[in-house]
Amino acid sequence: MKLGVCYYPEHWPEELWPDDARRMAELGISWVRIGEFAWSRIEPEPGCFDWDWLDRAVETLAAAGLKIVMCTPTATPPKWLVDAHPDILAWDEQGRPRGFGSRRHYDFSSETYRRESVRITEAVAARYGRHPAVGAWQTDNEYGCHDTTISYSPVAAAAFRGWLARRYQSVEALNRAWGAVFWSQEYRTFEEVEPPNLTVTEANPSHRLDYNRFASDQVAEFNRAQAAILRRLSPGRDITHNFMGFYTEFDHFQVGRDLDLASWDSYPLGFLEQFWFPETEKRRHLRHGHPDISGFHHDLYRGVGRGRWWVMEQQPGPVNWARYNPAPAAGAVRAWTWEAFAHGAEVVSYFRWRQAPFAQEQMHAGLNRPDNVLDRGGEEAAQVARELAELGPLEACGRADVALIFSYEADWQIGIQPHAKGFRWLELAFETYAALRRAGLDVDFVPPDADLTGYRLVVAPSLPILEPATLDAIAASGAVALFGPRTGSRTREGWIPPGLSPGPLKDRMPLTVTRVESLRPGSGPAVTADGASFAGRLWREVLDTALPPLATFDDGLPAWVCCQTWHYLATWPEGALMDAVIAKLAREAGLNPGAMDEGVRVRSRAGLRFAFNFTPEDRPTPAPRGARYVLGGPVLAPAGVAAWRVDPP
Amino acid sequence: MKLGVCYYPEHWPEELWPDDARRMAELGISWVRIGEFAWSRIEPEPGCFDWDWLDRAVETLAAAGLKIVMCTPTATPPKWLVDAHPDILAWDEQGRPRGFGSRRHYDFSSETYRRESVRITEAVAARYGRHPAVGAWQTDNEYGCHDTTISYSPVAAAAFRGWLARRYQSVEALNRAWGAVFWSQEYRTFEEVEPPNLTVTEANPSHRLDYNRFASDQVAEFNRAQAAILRRLSPGRDITHNFMGFYTEFDHFQVGRDLDLASWDSYPLGFLEQFWFPETEKRRHLRHGHPDISGFHHDLYRGVGRGRWWVMEQQPGPVNWARYNPAPAAGAVRAWTWEAFAHGAEVVSYFRWRQAPFAQEQMHAGLNRPDNVLDRGGEEAAQVARELAELGPLEACGRADVALIFSYEADWQIGIQPHAKGFRWLELAFETYAALRRAGLDVDFVPPDADLTGYRLVVAPSLPILEPATLDAIAASGAVALFGPRTGSRTREGWIPPGLSPGPLKDRMPLTVTRVESLRPGSGPAVTADGASFAGRLWREVLDTALPPLATFDDGLPAWVCCQTWHYLATWPEGALMDAVIAKLAREAGLNPGAMDEGVRVRSRAGLRFAFNFTPEDRPTPAPRGARYVLGGPVLAPAGVAAWRVDPP
Amino acid sequence: MKLGVCYYPEHWPEELWPDDARRMAELGISWVRIGEFAWSRIEPEPGCFDWDWLDRAVETLAAAGLKIVMCTPTATPPKWLVDAHPDILAWDEQGRPRGFGSRRHYDFSSETYRRESVRITEAVAARYGRHPAVGAWQTDNEYGCHDTTISYSPVAAAAFRGWLARRYQSVEALNRAWGAVFWSQEYRTFEEVEPPNLTVTEANPSHRLDYNRFASDQVAEFNRAQAAILRRLSPGRDITHNFMGFYTEFDHFQVGRDLDLASWDSYPLGFLEQFWFPETEKRRHLRHGHPDISGFHHDLYRGVGRGRWWVMEQQPGPVNWARYNPAPAAGAVRAWTWEAFAHGAEVVSYFRWRQAPFAQEQMHAGLNRPDNVLDRGGEEAAQVARELAELGPLEACGRADVALIFSYEADWQIGIQPHAKGFRWLELAFETYAALRRAGLDVDFVPPDADLTGYRLVVAPSLPILEPATLDAIAASGAVALFGPRTGSRTREGWIPPGLSPGPLKDRMPLTVTRVESLRPGSGPAVTADGASFAGRLWREVLDTALPPLATFDDGLPAWVCCQTWHYLATWPEGALMDAVIAKLAREAGLNPGAMDEGVRVRSRAGLRFAFNFTPEDRPTPAPRGARYVLGGPVLAPAGVAAWRVDPP
Repeated sequence: MKLGVCYYPEHWPEELWPDDARRMAELGISWVRIGEFAWSRIEPEPGCFDWDWLDRAVETLAAAGLKIVMCTPTATPPKWLVDAHPDILAWDEQGRPRGFGSRRHYDFSSETYRRESVRITEAVAARYGRHPAVGAWQTDNEYGCHDTTISYSPVAAAAFRGWLARRYQSVEALNRAWGAVFWSQEYRTFEEVEPPNLTVTEANPSHRLDYNRFASDQVAEFNRAQAAILRRLSPGRDITHNFMGFYTEFDHFQVGRDLDLASWDSYPLGFLEQFWFPETEKRRHLRHGHPDISGFHHDLYRGVGRGRWWVMEQQPGPVNWARYNPAPAAGAVRAWTWEAFAHGAEVVSYFRWRQAPFAQEQMHAGLNRPDNVLDRGGEEAAQVARELAELGPLEACGRADVALIFSYEADWQIGIQPHAKGFRWLELAFETYAALRRAGLDVDFVPPDADLTGYRLVVAPSLPILEPATLDAIAASGAVALFGPRTGSRTREGWIPPGLSPGPLKDRMPLTVTRVESLRPGSGPAVTADGASFAGRLWREVLDTALPPLATFDDGLPAWVCCQTWHYLATWPEGALMDAVIAKLAREAGLNPGAMDEGVRVRSRAGLRFAFNFTPEDRPTPAPRGARYVLGGPVLAPAGVAAWRVDPP
Repeated sequence: MKLGVCYYPEHWPEELWPDDARRMAELGISWVRIGEFAWSRIEPEPGCFDWDWLDRAVETLAAAGLKIVMCTPTATPPKWLVDAHPDILAWDEQGRPRGFGSRRHYDFSSETYRRESVRITEAVAARYGRHPAVGAWQTDNEYGCHDTTISYSPVAAAAFRGWLARRYQSVEALNRAWGAVFWSQEYRTFEEVEPPNLTVTEANPSHRLDYNRFASDQVAEFNRAQAAILRRLSPGRDITHNFMGFYTEFDHFQVGRDLDLASWDSYPLGFLEQFWFPETEKRRHLRHGHPDISGFHHDLYRGVGRGRWWVMEQQPGPVNWARYNPAPAAGAVRAWTWEAFAHGAEVVSYFRWRQAPFAQEQMHAGLNRPDNVLDRGGEEAAQVARELAELGPLEACGRADVALIFSYEADWQIGIQPHAKGFRWLELAFETYAALRRAGLDVDFVPPDADLTGYRLVVAPSLPILEPATLDAIAASGAVALFGPRTGSRTREGWIPPGLSPGPLKDRMPLTVTRVESLRPGSGPAVTADGASFAGRLWREVLDTALPPLATFDDGLPAWVCCQTWHYLATWPEGALMDAVIAKLAREAGLNPGAMDEGVRVRSRAGLRFAFNFTPEDRPTPAPRGARYVLGGPVLAPAGVAAWRVDPP
Repeated sequence: MKLGVCYYPEHWPEELWPDDARRMAELGISWVRIGEFAWSRIEPEPGCFDWDWLDRAVETLAAAGLKIVMCTPTATPPKWLVDAHPDILAWDEQGRPRGFGSRRHYDFSSETYRRESVRITEAVAARYGRHPAVGAWQTDNEYGCHDTTISYSPVAAAAFRGWLARRYQSVEALNRAWGAVFWSQEYRTFEEVEPPNLTVTEANPSHRLDYNRFASDQVAEFNRAQAAILRRLSPGRDITHNFMGFYTEFDHFQVGRDLDLASWDSYPLGFLEQFWFPETEKRRHLRHGHPDISGFHHDLYRGVGRGRWWVMEQQPGPVNWARYNPAPAAGAVRAWTWEAFAHGAEVVSYFRWRQAPFAQEQMHAGLNRPDNVLDRGGEEAAQVARELAELGPLEACGRADVALIFSYEADWQIGIQPHAKGFRWLELAFETYAALRRAGLDVDFVPPDADLTGYRLVVAPSLPILEPATLDAIAASGAVALFGPRTGSRTREGWIPPGLSPGPLKDRMPLTVTRVESLRPGSGPAVTADGASFAGRLWREVLDTALPPLATFDDGLPAWVCCQTWHYLATWPEGALMDAVIAKLAREAGLNPGAMDEGVRVRSRAGLRFAFNFTPEDRPTPAPRGARYVLGGPVLAPAGVAAWRVDPP
């Protein structure tokens, strides 16, 4: 468990570098990430490399005992490159090139840019790949940020046609798969196919789904090419990429398979502000962050990294990019850091060492202020460093009891056909996760094709495209299982299955979804379970089944059924109903679900149980009386952290 | 009174066709509409027609005793055609071509496409025009859907210039008509004129009004060319087009004149969700539909069809295209079908036979589920078929007592210059209609140039461009008349009339509108009538008149005046005021207005009076004690229908 | 103090002109503005001028004793000119040309258009420059209206590059100033730089700030070229431009320096409706106008005109261009006219003589109705004319006691980086002004580089880019000073200052802003001052200072500090807090702040004190008992005006 920091030597006078390096080391920082936006300094003119400054920066950091995460600088191709090759630029959905002047101005499908990406990656890797201080690599930066996964450029169209030809082999197969006979959309050759934008009304959903898949594959290919070079030229170093939160346009599991570990960029307050959370929650968690946003991603990226993961960028103070940018509460930066470690992080790296006084992020705090005075975030990082030293290293997280099946394809499918305004797969997944966490359970995120051996409860918030192998894996695990609405509602091609929803699940749970409807917010559906009244949201399915209902809609039809230990929900459950479902299933799985106090969360790692308080009020620590604390004590102050030893089961 | 269904043999394995045909007939269906999106199957390669499959489909349906509505497939030109002639595509207001990939991707002004439309229409008509099973034709599909009436393409610009040259003869006349001297907008030649989009600020309103007229004319010309071919090659068959609800971009009366009968596509729940209705009404009528949406269109299209009309597409279950897509209440599909017959429909045709498991409308219900099990909509259709058989045929609707003057040009004019955000002509017309219906009155929709003989009450919700002939027709009828605000406020060229509003109406009602103002929602104006307090909305006119006021604003100025039996409103009346106005005028006209219970509507046809309940609660049937019921009885259940015999007057 | 009117002879039959002129003179009008949209009539074909009609119009007006404001017609280049030179058109932020068909369809950077502007200005000036009736000139019309200051066209890009080359001399200096190393945005030549639009995410803020400065300079250059011609060819006449309210895209002070006097277009009801005011205020002031909107601009443009200013267009009735367009209350047009004179106007000119029955503004009232009957606005203008004649001339306004530093650059800087959604510099400036006016104080607007001698209170709502010279001027004046939040937060290049905010102010007020945060509406910050509870909005700064706090945030940190007579605010104060701050500072400055009744405002000019009532209820006139009234009396009716003599101090 180490601390890191993001550093931009090119932003600062060289005289500052040695002092910066010394102060990082003194603060307790081990890792320094550099280089990810430095292309214009590395290669100021086409083919003319200037390594001197970067050599000196590396040596300065190394001399202070710091380890380096070197980055490929491909997120920001320089102006001369873009001017020479305008086909590098992606095009937006409106059919316009997305120009130079900020970042991520490239198209994953551009052959030119792929060539350039290889060229610069080889150059950087050749220069620093075997440097002893370089301990890890980050490819590019935040793939997909600013909606850059999907492009509608001519080069993307051409690549898509090739992708389709490989996938379908014949245009007849394509027409069949897309149901292109509908509205005379049939193609005679792959060359006739275009991206699904700027159509008169909605494009064919199978067309759109394939476009999502294609775009996701392009990211994976782009990354894979860099990873292969780095493996060749920098043996023994970890390769990672810094993923973003609440971002699903490409399949992170797929990209993760080419990496040694996953990392993500954690901005608890910015995320709370920018996403779908209601006004009341945005106010309630203003300075502490939502209790589940960071945990959700920690667990997701632990899954993406197959157990190994970092926080590559940790919010250290106010950010610059949300609608409103409050300052974290005193102690929150420390608490977020400990939360990451509790969820298994190897490294938590702060963004950034010092606030830059210029350019787009000049309002983004760093560990140090622009005038080089250590800021509150820096002080809290130092505190964590001291606490880490005292605690000593911890083993990685073991397998949790609960697996949540996280499917990027599910998000695309439902995004293409929400059927109800505001039906977001990611939000449903998040709410499912939050209910598990309110019950005090540790959760692993797994892809739909995961081996599920060892899990006692498997939760699929919704899996529209349901592969029989997923069901086999659940069955093999013997776990209690929960399937959310819309599970099994589509074939791989995006069709309604021949025997209707839930598709392959019907073989194991005898039920048929004979009708679905979507409802305005405030129009129910009402749900009754165990005599208590609950509510669903936006969605209702009519189930034709003999399975006994555990909950019913107000017309008596089933809202929640089970078949032995497998459960199916015919609506999107509001919070209290979700809690009731989770509590019942967890008990059924032999787990011991609790009910966390509002804003309190727990997580176990390596014989320790950690607790966190995301509220501005004191909370009792949910530890047994007489707990052996290694951090904190029986009262969790606001932004408080506690940890105590638990006996192995 | 027959039932029909929309069917897409090209979507299904040929093995299914005979069974489908048999089951249709058994269900009580008489008419089957086919072919309107099948161009890519009819002509898979340029000039190579494949009639075999369609021949077999026609024969299969005919063999089951079904009659066919054959369609021209021009709503979906195939990809090869668009690729060969990109000038087929319309351009949006932002100046971008609207591409292939969904439907209606063509420009009504494209000479290329007009040629192609003639070519394919002739081909289909030649093949099936004299087939005995082909009993009717539908041209194209839903003209204007997805805002496709108006295009800003180069071909549209060129056609507009020709249209202007024909209309104005000289550019001087054009400059004069548009008041082009304003802001130095004068043209030296017709060639200098462009479509009114992408201007720095608002374009000249007369320019815009002419662009609307031009676009409407283009639709009519396009349709007329198809109708002429069909008349020539398929003699004796009815020609229709399936119009859309709440769609006013072209003049449906104008297109209707080239048809034998009108038809429209009725989606009560989708329309309620998509249009301007307040949240409370959307919730209240969630599953039954708004009491006036379907009736409003039934009466409009009976007018467009000069008495003859069908529902070509009837919602049979949840649709896929609204923000929220609830399921109809049990019985609602039956009730909507009967409502159409009560308003005079010859045929009600359900969309569609079977829910498609693929493509854009895969979430749109059919009479059958995708797994080919009869769905609730299908069961209710069967019930209607049985009831129809029992009831026997009914005469067409007679002339109603009340005429509502429906003007597409009025909608364009007010759309160009709403003056108050949210002042929609169509909404005002709808609210006027709803008040008439709440009073239990039957209503005919007539165009502004209609012969009004025989009407006892004529209502013009608003007629900004008021032709003297309209006033002559009202006067000749002897009817009581109501004119809404803004009537007579513009000349044909879009000018304020020389003697101010209400223009030609001043000759018959001595009043002058000396000032108009528009007001924020919630700012009145307050209105007093007969000592009771009411409210107007958005709009207030100051009238200079000696006519006695029937209602006044809070400063004592007149809000409602009459001159003998003609009435004028100086505001948009809120519901209660509209009810009071209608009640008074109806009585004045010798009618006997009632006051329907909330959500109940009545309509008479051929000696029968029908009643419908659009609420989820029971309602008393508004029939006299001892009524001779042919359907239902004295209690209207939710979605209930009743009909009883009335003695001829 | 004279009245004027805007007149368009080209819109009316020539027969009407003599009668119009006679009636203008009889009404008491002295000045008539003509010609600003008449290019297509002056030069109907390229190079062919038609002066006859305009000669006759000028003679007709002159013969009636009227003085003429002649305009350059450059706001509306004719179609033939645009067609011949498409590079005249500006491009919008989306990269599309902004076409012909309304007005202001030109790019300030177009060399072609600058040449044409010179050509037509010389032609008009040569024709009428020495005509005795032509007493003043207006350049163009409402620079910037419809967001036309900033263009993203190729000609703008080229001009920007030249501007940058002149400003920075070397591209290295440019890269340094913009911090272009960030995200590899560095340029190798000025030719590589593009406008800051259509970037993937936000463009570099220094790049954007320079683009604003460049665009503002282009307007000033464009205007300067016209002014130079007019000075040469029309000696002795006043040159002005009619600026718009709430419009900050270019620096009006800069343009004003090339004019003899400023003028602005005052539409109290339209402005209230179109800008950020809350619903409740829009309703409250529906017909009378907001008490501070007109005064704010009167004082601004008196500053822009260095004491000399007109209202060039005064709202005379309902306008056509707001979302809702109510009619002014009876008396409001008179009251607005007197308010302008009270604030020092030389001329108030109504827009327009007669409502036009055609084209874009046909719903815009005039002094006369379209049928040429004098409307209420005309009657009220006549009343003012009579009152003016009775009162006789007044001296210009003297220097006020209070100066408000108004900085266009501040508005640009904060617009580029609001950091909180809804943080608008202009709104903060407006609220600061309103608090001063609620305290009964007269206010002068000054640019940041003004000489401040003689002021007793200087208020800077916020000055992010703070020049030391501004501080020197305040210090030299000896005035009490108030600095709002974000003052001194940026260098001229847009950087955070090396020693942090408030930059140069730190030398005089020992404080450092160590952190800023922005907060959602409803999340405070809470503020306590003198034991009373107040609130700030959107913004909070953490001050590191030993200065004693006059108000504190709820964590005890300072919200308002002072250093002798200079004050600094660490938040945007809500109204009550702003009032408390202003009251304290005014007293400290030796002024005698009052507390106006709601909706009442006062203003002094030349020994008279005027009072105005912007509410629909009576209010007591805030005059001493026994005041010597020259207008009105002790009760201010709705839209009432009073004026009384005050003894010189």
